[in-house]
Amino acid sequence: MSSSERKQIKVGILGATGTVGQRFIQLLSTHPYFVIHALGASSRSAGQRYGKVTKWKLNTPIPKEIGNMVVQECKPDAEGFKDCGVVFSGLDADVAGEIEEAFRSANLIVFSNAKNYRRDPLCPLIVPLVNPSHLSIIPHQKKTLGLEKGYIVTNANCSTTGLVVPLAALEKAFGPLQTVMVTTLQAISGAGYPGVSSLDILDNVVPHIGGEEEKIEWETNKILGGLNSDNTQFDLHSNESVKAINVSATTTRVPVIDGHTGVVSVKFSKSPAPSMEEIDRAFREFRCEAQELNVPSAPPQAIVVHDAPDRPQPRLDRDLHNGACVSVGRVRPCPVLDVKFVCLIDNVRLGAATSSIMNAEIAVEKGLIV
Amino acid sequence: MSSSERKQIKVGILGATGTVGQRFIQLLSTHPYFVIHALGASSRSAGQRYGKVTKWKLNTPIPKEIGNMVVQECKPDAEGFKDCGVVFSGLDADVAGEIEEAFRSANLIVFSNAKNYRRDPLCPLIVPLVNPSHLSIIPHQKKTLGLEKGYIVTNANCSTTGLVVPLAALEKAFGPLQTVMVTTLQAISGAGYPGVSSLDILDNVVPHIGGEEEKIEWETNKILGGLNSDNTQFDLHSNESVKAINVSATTTRVPVIDGHTGVVSVKFSKSPAPSMEEIDRAFREFRCEAQELNVPSAPPQAIVVHDAPDRPQPRLDRDLHNGACVSVGRVRPCPVLDVKFVCLIDNVRLGAATSSIMNAEIAVEKGLIV
Amino acid sequence: MSSSERKQIKVGILGATGTVGQRFIQLLSTHPYFVIHALGASSRSAGQRYGKVTKWKLNTPIPKEIGNMVVQECKPDAEGFKDCGVVFSGLDADVAGEIEEAFRSANLIVFSNAKNYRRDPLCPLIVPLVNPSHLSIIPHQKKTLGLEKGYIVTNANCSTTGLVVPLAALEKAFGPLQTVMVTTLQAISGAGYPGVSSLDILDNVVPHIGGEEEKIEWETNKILGGLNSDNTQFDLHSNESVKAINVSATTTRVPVIDGHTGVVSVKFSKSPAPSMEEIDRAFREFRCEAQELNVPSAPPQAIVVHDAPDRPQPRLDRDLHNGACVSVGRVRPCPVLDVKFVCLIDNVRLGAATSSIMNAEIAVEKGLIV
Amino acid sequence: MSSSERKQIKVGILGATGTVGQRFIQLLSTHPYFVIHALGASSRSAGQRYGKVTKWKLNTPIPKEIGNMVVQECKPDAEGFKDCGVVFSGLDADVAGEIEEAFRSANLIVFSNAKNYRRDPLCPLIVPLVNPSHLSIIPHQKKTLGLEKGYIVTNANCSTTGLVVPLAALEKAFGPLQTVMVTTLQAISGAGYPGVSSLDILDNVVPHIGGEEEKIEWETNKILGGLNSDNTQFDLHSNESVKAINVSATTTRVPVIDGHTGVVSVKFSKSPAPSMEEIDRAFREFRCEAQELNVPSAPPQAIVVHDAPDRPQPRLDRDLHNGACVSVGRVRPCPVLDVKFVCLIDNVRLGAATSSIMNAEIAVEKGLIV
Repeated sequence: MSSSERKQIKVGILGATGTVGQRFIQLLSTHPYFVIHALGASSRSAGQRYGKVTKWKLNTPIPKEIGNMVVQECKPDAEGFKDCGVVFSGLDADVAGEIEEAFRSANLIVFSNAKNYRRDPLCPLIVPLVNPSHLSIIPHQKKTLGLEKGYIVTNANCSTTGLVVPLAALEKAFGPLQTVMVTTLQAISGAGYPGVSSLDILDNVVPHIGGEEEKIEWETNKILGGLNSDNTQFDLHSNESVKAINVSATTTRVPVIDGHTGVVSVKFSKSPAPSMEEIDRAFREFRCEAQELNVPSAPPQAIVVHDAPDRPQPRLDRDLHNGACVSVGRVRPCPVLDVKFVCLIDNVRLGAATSSIMNAEIAVEKGLIV
Repeated sequence: MSSSERKQIKVGILGATGTVGQRFIQLLSTHPYFVIHALGASSRSAGQRYGKVTKWKLNTPIPKEIGNMVVQECKPDAEGFKDCGVVFSGLDADVAGEIEEAFRSANLIVFSNAKNYRRDPLCPLIVPLVNPSHLSIIPHQKKTLGLEKGYIVTNANCSTTGLVVPLAALEKAFGPLQTVMVTTLQAISGAGYPGVSSLDILDNVVPHIGGEEEKIEWETNKILGGLNSDNTQFDLHSNESVKAINVSATTTRVPVIDGHTGVVSVKFSKSPAPSMEEIDRAFREFRCEAQELNVPSAPPQAIVVHDAPDRPQPRLDRDLHNGACVSVGRVRPCPVLDVKFVCLIDNVRLGAATSSIMNAEIAVEKGLIV
Repeated sequence: MSSSERKQIKVGILGATGTVGQRFIQLLSTHPYFVIHALGASSRSAGQRYGKVTKWKLNTPIPKEIGNMVVQECKPDAEGFKDCGVVFSGLDADVAGEIEEAFRSANLIVFSNAKNYRRDPLCPLIVPLVNPSHLSIIPHQKKTLGLEKGYIVTNANCSTTGLVVPLAALEKAFGPLQTVMVTTLQAISGAGYPGVSSLDILDNVVPHIGGEEEKIEWETNKILGGLNSDNTQFDLHSNESVKAINVSATTTRVPVIDGHTGVVSVKFSKSPAPSMEEIDRAFREFRCEAQELNVPSAPPQAIVVHDAPDRPQPRLDRDLHNGACVSVGRVRPCPVLDVKFVCLIDNVRLGAATSSIMNAEIAVEKGLIV
Repeated sequence: MSSSERKQIKVGILGATGTVGQRFIQLLSTHPYFVIHALGASSRSAGQRYGKVTKWKLNTPIPKEIGNMVVQECKPDAEGFKDCGVVFSGLDADVAGEIEEAFRSANLIVFSNAKNYRRDPLCPLIVPLVNPSHLSIIPHQKKTLGLEKGYIVTNANCSTTGLVVPLAALEKAFGPLQTVMVTTLQAISGAGYPGVSSLDILDNVVPHIGGEEEKIEWETNKILGGLNSDNTQFDLHSNESVKAINVSATTTRVPVIDGHTGVVSVKFSKSPAPSMEEIDRAFREFRCEAQELNVPSAPPQAIVVHDAPDRPQPRLDRDLHNGACVSVGRVRPCPVLDVKFVCLIDNVRLGAATSSIMNAEIAVEKGLIV
């Protein structure tokens, strides 16, 4: 069934006025079958028109019909949410835990960008270009909680997402990885709005983002790991029963609006390591399930490999394939580990809203959203 | 003998109108005993007043007496250079090789910031807070070339300098290092003027600086290495006869005016590795020869360790100790190597002009400049 | 005849590798009837593939078929140009004069973004949303020069363009203007590539752009002026035979990538001046010939009036209507003149390439390009 | 009496942890006779060490002895304030009104950077390089309020300050001004911390700063106006009994850290207007009372006139004379008014903390602080 033939599915957006929420709206307003039906925000905004209460920060205007919608509180019984086939959450972590749980308990399906349930042993943590197979734990999640319909799916931290896509390509081609070192140069939009004060970042680098390094080091292993045979438990990176990847991350903030850059070194388990040509080819030839399923948000290339020695660059490359792919460049030998390269992700699209949406599209294909 | 008692030494500056040359002038114009006596630039500028031909880009005005000086060509027989006890070179690499050689052949002493002679087996490559002991090869340099007085001393690449100071502190306290991984986030001033186009760097990161990674990987070993017993040959990192440090560097350009940040991971040769507390203390207690000699440009602390988790930051910390120290922060265990930390250097001061000047001050103390 | 029914017209691009040339390519590669047929650049690039010699700086990739085209020298007899129905020039002013003249003499039609012929009494200076009626001098241009087919049409300086569109709306509604004061805050892309050094503009404002103020003060009057009755001579702002508008401009450069902001105050000839409501309505209701002719690049609104008190902003509003309109905001009384407001133009689209293209589209409609 | 002979005067700082408060500390920690004795902040910080509760954002470290001081609540009877000869206020406007009034009522002398009492008919609004003569209303303020010792002196908005210094030079030389038009390009530090979100200002201009235009238009006239003969009432710009200056201001925010740029056009009352040479000379020769009194913070030049056509620039010129002067450049005829020029002020020094301090120094000289 092609996207244009699918019948429309009503969707809700939690945290609709925030940075990620705005991206959900921008992306969903032209979606072939998801139709924005309910917008949730804080009680301060509830009851008012979206266009009036939102400090819209994107360079495309608020879609007119969305601007006129009345914002609801983030409660499952607020008008509209009950009819939604899926609810996307762009909520901040300090409120996401309770609200998402309330929606799930009300038998709603939540695809969340928040971190709260990423480490939950019942919740899949899915990067749509990497591990949609983890959706198979959903029946177990529903059963454990005694829910007929409701469940939560999370997507990964934005910088983790940019990292695991090329890592997945390497694992797919060459087997388990042993060691990964990554330094990120992250955009200000990753911190939301108002987020990073301009006095902190103009003509500056902030070499610390709270909690971010632990997220990268931990999430990478859940995402690249497997499920046990009856789909009831994640093996933290149990790909072929190997031990976890040893990940060391340092995260920094730089004066870039959108686009997280990662400087990565990798050591393979197998020895001798593949050649640079083999690695380059593995990146270029990487195909993933989202592409096989041909879901609407899947990019034509999951990884774009750049030949120019000074690419990828956030300002020039973040918009490739509508921000739904990962750029990779500078693939070359690492004197310490095996290979080093640079990767780039659009942190607010594939790193956030696009991942949630693509995850839901895949769930639709798999019959998990109806 | 205290600095104020030293008799004045006339100095010349090659490449005086450029980015590094301007810093030489700014720093030397208030020096206790070096007195600016000759300014050299391209033939285009020669014969005109310095204030007229220079696009001065520093936030302190051109010292008035310097602004009125007539610029010379970069030739040893141009007016003024003959009388100079030392000539500082801020020349670009494409011309530095020939010009510095001409000055040396004319029995002038050159302290150069250019890269041309850094790998020369006769020329010391000195970071003043690390290896001024390498000046002991100078008699061999002069003898080999049959020169009575002339010689060349180089200082290191700016990003190398910011790295080797903390590495030297670690080697001094804990013995040889085995492995170093570093990612740099470098300021635009490192590329000179006009240097980096604003269209390339605003809202952007450029993940490549030509030749820079090789410099870091190579220079680190020459600087941290030793000399043979008769002071005629460098052992590339032969500290205690161990093999070279395995260095892997990735260098990036970020929208920062001054101040190179380095994200560093280190593995020690000794096992078990020192504790984080021991490492922290080694940084804080590091003292170097420049400080023992009490030369005018030596900072009170060679390394400033920051306690705040989000420091050092280029805009806030590059001016510490007049840009003559290295900042270190975020000292913590590395899941892959032994320890990771962040370092910061003012690339145009300790990373360039200040190093040359401090090297010359040390040479004065050692009787190599009279 | 609708755009899609027009037969294709081959076009050439002079200065194809530069900042404006790249925009020509980006915009023309999806044009309904202009087809890129020849690319001209300096002899250094000639003979090589476009994708190889161009430092492409846009955030959409080089269209594949363009990347493979062989670049020609900017000579009318170089391969391809002879067949072009129109040649767009994004040349720098230092070479544009001679080259454009050579193309015209070879009976080619040139639509130029360069300044060289803007003040020529035979050449129309056209902002497509303002004065396409000036195309009527073309027969006189051709006749005077004894050319059967060749002529030159220029478009205005980017900051002039952003100013005259709202001024034209005011003149259309309220008659001649007496006085205009404008301060611009201009983007770095206005200076081309490499253009503005990052060391000059990061954390900075440069309150001077050479020649720009004179251009605004002079061009405004030619554009808003009329033609004599037999279409052989421009009356510099002879709209209803009134005297020239007294324009005072100050131009500054700010750290913005694309989008020139103008702070404008205006005094009308008529007294009493119109009310703020009337002025606001005049902006909103402004319709122009390009829209009546329904040419492909004409925006649905020539002027977008913003209600939010802090708009327009370059980053958020420059992309409106694909960069082909002018944004206006903060319309309010001026204590000194009559009204003040803020305007914004995408300097590389409507301020440059889009204007040339829309001018040519209008010329096509008028039968001046066949 | 020279500054070094003056006996020390204890001072307090209200709002000590904020942007302006930090500048007060930086500047006062090396003051010849003001000694920091009490630090006031919100109750959240009170009782803790200054170094612990302050997000210090300056590029010089917190002076060690200040870092160890215990922060007090902003109450006149909190420890230390009672002994202060003067209390400097860097409070935000939302709390400054009540707190400053409480301090005055407790017979403390307040020099405030807040806007709350600027329009109060009893309070002088003083730019120290312009109108310290307005201090003569203080006896009337104290008498009216029945206070023996307490009074409030305010300094002007930062952008007003940068404007009125050159205007005062023009009035002093050529008599009353008739009309002033000004467009400002203001730095982010003017909005305090966290202040402007980086997402709002990177690659952007915000053409609106709430309330700022009204401040410039109103304050200019109070500052440049006079006092009646018995020093009990301000004549809003009654300089020689002329009517108010007609001021039109537009204020914008640009991605600059420190330093407000103003683009100014002026019309004189007298006709013919002075020549550009006379105006240039009036700027260069301007001397003010703060200089005659030789107070410690008075700059050697109140106005620095730049000859280069592209100056002043915030990054290069804000540090001149330790941020205590105003830079002026591009003095040239205005086609609409008489003269136009560009001015620049360090908004956090002369535009804020330095003005308060210099005002207090002048009050010391006049015997108003003992």
